[in-house]
Amino acid sequence: MAFTYNRLNKDDVALLMVDHQAGLLSLVRDFSPDEFKNNVLALADIAKFFNIPTILTTSFENGPNGPMVPELKEAFASAPYIPRPGQINAWDNQDFVDAIKATGKKQLLIAGVVTEVCVAFPVLSALEEGYEVFVVTDASGTFNQTTRDASWKRMSQAGAQLMTWFGVGCELHRDWRNDIEGFGGLLAGHLPAYANLMQSYSQQAAV
Amino acid sequence: MAFTYNRLNKDDVALLMVDHQAGLLSLVRDFSPDEFKNNVLALADIAKFFNIPTILTTSFENGPNGPMVPELKEAFASAPYIPRPGQINAWDNQDFVDAIKATGKKQLLIAGVVTEVCVAFPVLSALEEGYEVFVVTDASGTFNQTTRDASWKRMSQAGAQLMTWFGVGCELHRDWRNDIEGFGGLLAGHLPAYANLMQSYSQQAAV
Amino acid sequence: MAFTYNRLNKDDVALLMVDHQAGLLSLVRDFSPDEFKNNVLALADIAKFFNIPTILTTSFENGPNGPMVPELKEAFASAPYIPRPGQINAWDNQDFVDAIKATGKKQLLIAGVVTEVCVAFPVLSALEEGYEVFVVTDASGTFNQTTRDASWKRMSQAGAQLMTWFGVGCELHRDWRNDIEGFGGLLAGHLPAYANLMQSYSQQAAV
Amino acid sequence: MAFTYNRLNKDDVALLMVDHQAGLLSLVRDFSPDEFKNNVLALADIAKFFNIPTILTTSFENGPNGPMVPELKEAFASAPYIPRPGQINAWDNQDFVDAIKATGKKQLLIAGVVTEVCVAFPVLSALEEGYEVFVVTDASGTFNQTTRDASWKRMSQAGAQLMTWFGVGCELHRDWRNDIEGFGGLLAGHLPAYANLMQSYSQQAAV
Amino acid sequence: MAFTYNRLNKDDVALLMVDHQAGLLSLVRDFSPDEFKNNVLALADIAKFFNIPTILTTSFENGPNGPMVPELKEAFASAPYIPRPGQINAWDNQDFVDAIKATGKKQLLIAGVVTEVCVAFPVLSALEEGYEVFVVTDASGTFNQTTRDASWKRMSQAGAQLMTWFGVGCELHRDWRNDIEGFGGLLAGHLPAYANLMQSYSQQAAV
Amino acid sequence: MAFTYNRLNKDDVALLMVDHQAGLLSLVRDFSPDEFKNNVLALADIAKFFNIPTILTTSFENGPNGPMVPELKEAFASAPYIPRPGQINAWDNQDFVDAIKATGKKQLLIAGVVTEVCVAFPVLSALEEGYEVFVVTDASGTFNQTTRDASWKRMSQAGAQLMTWFGVGCELHRDWRNDIEGFGGLLAGHLPAYANLMQSYSQQAAV
Amino acid sequence: MAFTYNRLNKDDVALLMVDHQAGLLSLVRDFSPDEFKNNVLALADIAKFFNIPTILTTSFENGPNGPMVPELKEAFASAPYIPRPGQINAWDNQDFVDAIKATGKKQLLIAGVVTEVCVAFPVLSALEEGYEVFVVTDASGTFNQTTRDASWKRMSQAGAQLMTWFGVGCELHRDWRNDIEGFGGLLAGHLPAYANLMQSYSQQAAV
Amino acid sequence: MAFTYNRLNKDDVALLMVDHQAGLLSLVRDFSPDEFKNNVLALADIAKFFNIPTILTTSFENGPNGPMVPELKEAFASAPYIPRPGQINAWDNQDFVDAIKATGKKQLLIAGVVTEVCVAFPVLSALEEGYEVFVVTDASGTFNQTTRDASWKRMSQAGAQLMTWFGVGCELHRDWRNDIEGFGGLLAGHLPAYANLMQSYSQQAAV
Repeated sequence: MAFTYNRLNKDDVALLMVDHQAGLLSLVRDFSPDEFKNNVLALADIAKFFNIPTILTTSFENGPNGPMVPELKEAFASAPYIPRPGQINAWDNQDFVDAIKATGKKQLLIAGVVTEVCVAFPVLSALEEGYEVFVVTDASGTFNQTTRDASWKRMSQAGAQLMTWFGVGCELHRDWRNDIEGFGGLLAGHLPAYANLMQSYSQQAAV
Repeated sequence: MAFTYNRLNKDDVALLMVDHQAGLLSLVRDFSPDEFKNNVLALADIAKFFNIPTILTTSFENGPNGPMVPELKEAFASAPYIPRPGQINAWDNQDFVDAIKATGKKQLLIAGVVTEVCVAFPVLSALEEGYEVFVVTDASGTFNQTTRDASWKRMSQAGAQLMTWFGVGCELHRDWRNDIEGFGGLLAGHLPAYANLMQSYSQQAAV
Repeated sequence: MAFTYNRLNKDDVALLMVDHQAGLLSLVRDFSPDEFKNNVLALADIAKFFNIPTILTTSFENGPNGPMVPELKEAFASAPYIPRPGQINAWDNQDFVDAIKATGKKQLLIAGVVTEVCVAFPVLSALEEGYEVFVVTDASGTFNQTTRDASWKRMSQAGAQLMTWFGVGCELHRDWRNDIEGFGGLLAGHLPAYANLMQSYSQQAAV
Repeated sequence: MAFTYNRLNKDDVALLMVDHQAGLLSLVRDFSPDEFKNNVLALADIAKFFNIPTILTTSFENGPNGPMVPELKEAFASAPYIPRPGQINAWDNQDFVDAIKATGKKQLLIAGVVTEVCVAFPVLSALEEGYEVFVVTDASGTFNQTTRDASWKRMSQAGAQLMTWFGVGCELHRDWRNDIEGFGGLLAGHLPAYANLMQSYSQQAAV
Repeated sequence: MAFTYNRLNKDDVALLMVDHQAGLLSLVRDFSPDEFKNNVLALADIAKFFNIPTILTTSFENGPNGPMVPELKEAFASAPYIPRPGQINAWDNQDFVDAIKATGKKQLLIAGVVTEVCVAFPVLSALEEGYEVFVVTDASGTFNQTTRDASWKRMSQAGAQLMTWFGVGCELHRDWRNDIEGFGGLLAGHLPAYANLMQSYSQQAAV
Repeated sequence: MAFTYNRLNKDDVALLMVDHQAGLLSLVRDFSPDEFKNNVLALADIAKFFNIPTILTTSFENGPNGPMVPELKEAFASAPYIPRPGQINAWDNQDFVDAIKATGKKQLLIAGVVTEVCVAFPVLSALEEGYEVFVVTDASGTFNQTTRDASWKRMSQAGAQLMTWFGVGCELHRDWRNDIEGFGGLLAGHLPAYANLMQSYSQQAAV
Repeated sequence: MAFTYNRLNKDDVALLMVDHQAGLLSLVRDFSPDEFKNNVLALADIAKFFNIPTILTTSFENGPNGPMVPELKEAFASAPYIPRPGQINAWDNQDFVDAIKATGKKQLLIAGVVTEVCVAFPVLSALEEGYEVFVVTDASGTFNQTTRDASWKRMSQAGAQLMTWFGVGCELHRDWRNDIEGFGGLLAGHLPAYANLMQSYSQQAAV
Repeated sequence: MAFTYNRLNKDDVALLMVDHQAGLLSLVRDFSPDEFKNNVLALADIAKFFNIPTILTTSFENGPNGPMVPELKEAFASAPYIPRPGQINAWDNQDFVDAIKATGKKQLLIAGVVTEVCVAFPVLSALEEGYEVFVVTDASGTFNQTTRDASWKRMSQAGAQLMTWFGVGCELHRDWRNDIEGFGGLLAGHLPAYANLMQSYSQQAAV
């Protein structure tokens, strides 16, 4: 019953971004649009910052679900991009699973829309396959808080670890001495309250 | 400690609708009436769509608890219908258990009113009997959110998986290629926000 | 300082439905989608029931704002329908104002999306013109509750009366003896909790 | 623009209890059932304590709306009781208005279900007739808080004073020396937190 | 990993009421006073109805904590009553444990004030001793919802089952045929919404 | 209809503290205890800082209502202290009104427990007498937010200005140059978030 | 009592941005940091878009209050910038009032931190001077929602109109034909939900 | 599967206070500033009262994160104080771990800012090392409630026990007879509602 801390390791993790599409985003009501946009883009910046292999997938992007958020497409222009022809659980798509296996990583960060389907299904499939799975909860959205609560319990019960983009960034970074400017800039760009601290500090330091 | 993803399988699942009666529905306060009605009817449509064997049961429907919701009665006109003579836990009613066994399924979807009694009791009984149990949380209602939280924890602790009607539909459908029109219509009928996406898309496509 | 009760009068009222378009509806976050859809359709049913002259208007329905909700288009197939070429305040569109004047009514019911713009602007213009204005608050939606609160205060401060579809229906109907079946059916169709009462009552009455 | 404090005066006030019927109470969702029941019965006790002339009215109590709450019927067994044959606004019922006029009072306390109809309509009618009107807000209930907010604004805008049963009791009592035991008992019976204070005090006083 | 449903059994359960004292009740802020009073008294009525051996305990009732709620004292006039001379965890008081053992029951219902101390500590002690423990969550109160959430998680993690007074009553009763009148009366007395259903039904039945 | 800004003037204002008694404080549920205590003491500090004439009054402090909060008693040791023999509206007590008149001020700051009675009644009386009245809303508490909302509307409708202790302090101070250290210290002592700013600033300034 | 719609007119309005400083922003708790930052920058973009004369003022920016938000400083690099030497109400600073008068406008948009002081005080002063005053409520923040509610009521009572940045932008723009691209881009940049609509539309249009 | 109650033992516990720094505190939004300050200082008082070995650590306190809260620095003037040169997880700092090991305790109380990083990371590390870990949830704060919920689930899933400062104090104290005055004073100083009880009691006792 000894506990092992399966800790995020930037050399052993891949990121899966599932169905962050313009139409589907209109369904997200457990975060305000401002907050959710910020959370998703912060996660993308973290993946870029740490060079985390990232895999994008979409569902019917030429239909009502709409195109993938352009900022993500641009941020991960050379990442595997898998438009699924119909599978709801991305893990049922062989190309998607192959792309994950090709990364050779054993830890998976998963975020998507909507939480109880596009996130929870591949989370459970990945756990069954033996991956260590980390849900980026605040870059995943759904219809309402009740639905979110139920899906969080289902994923947590199965062994997934629930995190947020900020926790992910900090657990990957480990030590500020690895890069103060870069990581600090990333945080300031997505945490207005932290940016305020830095501005007050800088002005005074300049005196 | 390996995790097995007990995934809903449309060929191995039955649905139990417990005590969705007109009087008892007036007790439900953890959902707005509009939302709850929509959730219950969406679950019914899913069961119809996938031909899930469904079993209905009621408690004293000639008394204050009132008749089963007419839409359910109509939707499942030929389903086993078990008015219980007094058992609070439907699993204590032999006819009910027999009807479940007669389906030959090992997965059970359970929804009802009120959550901590009419849902939780048969959920726990079914788990003890070895069934894989999935609670349809948003088609189950009760007095307030505190009560809901406590009952969710009790059922989750026992091993039940907490889902919602939308997650159930998607996990059963697996692949949109099985039926785009039908399943899309089902979703649009119960997700106004998704219907809006489809309308915008259709108009533009018609241009 | 004597108070005059400007009471809705079915013979002296017109309804303005402003910008209930599929795309714009995705912006509404101060109501759940289920509730808001129900509220808007309930208001439409009331207008039909009482033969209230109704005027529809939209803003750029061939663009991202999307088409008017199809149920409204259908319900008011022969009503004046004014796609505005650019005016944000519908009252700045002469056709719209002309259509209102053509009704010869001095009371206006106004609902729309979003509340602080598409509703508030014509509300204030109509008040200035001397109309008695009634905002149908729950058939009007916007980004969040803070915005709603501010816009309600602005409209109320100017003299508009804040109502809901249910209050509107009841103030118009005045006396159940005018039509019990019809009005009761309308309410039951949009108030699940009231439908439950009727079902319990009917079953027992049938005994 | 001098302000006059229209203060409740036990010798010049009547109470109107509108449509507190068993069926309609199931529609009330802006208070928990425990709280609302307590509030309504507290108001009734206040009326009894101060011998306030009280008038009861109901709407279709043999139908789905159900009978008046039995505790009210019993508390006001000899009060005018006016089952309305159809008028939604009780003020449209001549018997109701006659009963009010017969009291000879110029201040009216009004409570009922639902707030935006059964309360707001007679409130506005009474204001137009020149009465000083006090809404007992917490003995009046409706579908949700949004509806309540809108109706409160409409009534307040027209000049009604918004109160609660506790405020009403205290403004009527004026001075504890008029009756400490009686009024204290009334409060303790409906304010568990105050009853706790009294119990702690009494025990210690007994030492 | 087979699950056993440890189901409440009226012949094998005892109830522990811990520190429901007038002073301490003023600290409870996760329920409104009306609701909490109702919940505690409902639990007491259930214990009386099923003749559940009940043990009361208090902490310094002659000091600021105040006396036990008089309704409980009266309801359980002949029950073991253990004023603790100082132990915070009631299980550290030998008389309390002896009283529990004297009942010979292996299931314990525990409720008290405040949840994270007076309830959680004996809950954890009882679990360690091998009892099946059921927390009556809504008859237990504390400072705020954050504290409640943390303490629920701690108790649930340890294996306690979280219930409510209504669930407890129903799980004990098992079958309405054991006593319809008595149990129905108990529910009606503590669930105003259910009482309303019964009144509507009774009136119509009387027609 | 020209608007006059009745602005707080430290030379023309008196403060009335009504019934901040230990027992009554247990009834306050629209603020957390930590926040409310801080708000009341902040208001007291402001009155001391600006030498605002202050009048204290209590209701039955030897009974269950309990003694005045000791910090207030100490802060205003030489202020008029009027234990009312029974009047609920403090304005009905001649000593209280005399004490107010003796100050010769025409602006009144009023705070108390509970808001809709102990605050609202003297607020309305003072307005009728022609005073400019400012309610210190966050140093006044009551049973719940619904009650607070109703009483705020009643007082605002009558012409009272709704403020908070922070707004009061700032409107009285007018210009930081009158006293930076003193007023800054006052704020830091009652606004932890502001104290944090000052600490960060001071440390850096010391570098 | 005829109502005049004092409508925002881009040729007759000035914007006052009061104390949006890095330190003070840490006090704002009635909006999430992401939302508030977006609201403030959206308002700045509107002022730029319509060339609204804008006046910035700060309070002790070399102390704990911190520097003005750099994005504002940059956006309004050539605007009057008035660091107040001590006046809390910016209207007490002659330079500030002179700068306003120099614009020659009679409508004022006011936003700032914190709402009940830095916004409310100049709002009331400006109303007294005869200006038409519009509060940009969502670009103004304060300690908590209770404080916000009280200050909104105070300003509304005095005649200020409560708006939001979105309402301000739309009331100024009047007609989309004035500039579709520019105004649409502004909205899309600050309303993620609207940007999503535009992306879905654009992709389909491109097909 | 027998449960062991790992109960806090004042002789076997150490307290870790992680990053309670003036700047970082401005990020905490899941508690009001008043409540959070009180919680942190209450925990400090408990550690002092029971002579719990305490270890303080900070992250970049000369930068924007700001200095440690002065009250903590003062309270634990002679405690190990470890300013980390860059490690985000304090457990990665060897001095920190050495200081913990030097205490020789096997139970750890951990609190800090922000919860999902500065608390969760060392919590998970400590669990892996075999410590019994108790999170002081209400002396730990973060960006919002969603983040808190996710981090609580992660820590609870790993085996940490979630507590609050009050529960910690009571579980350590065990028996009031160990020290009534001291512990009572500690509670009264941090629980205004309890202080009120004591004041009412004392006054009456003095009679």
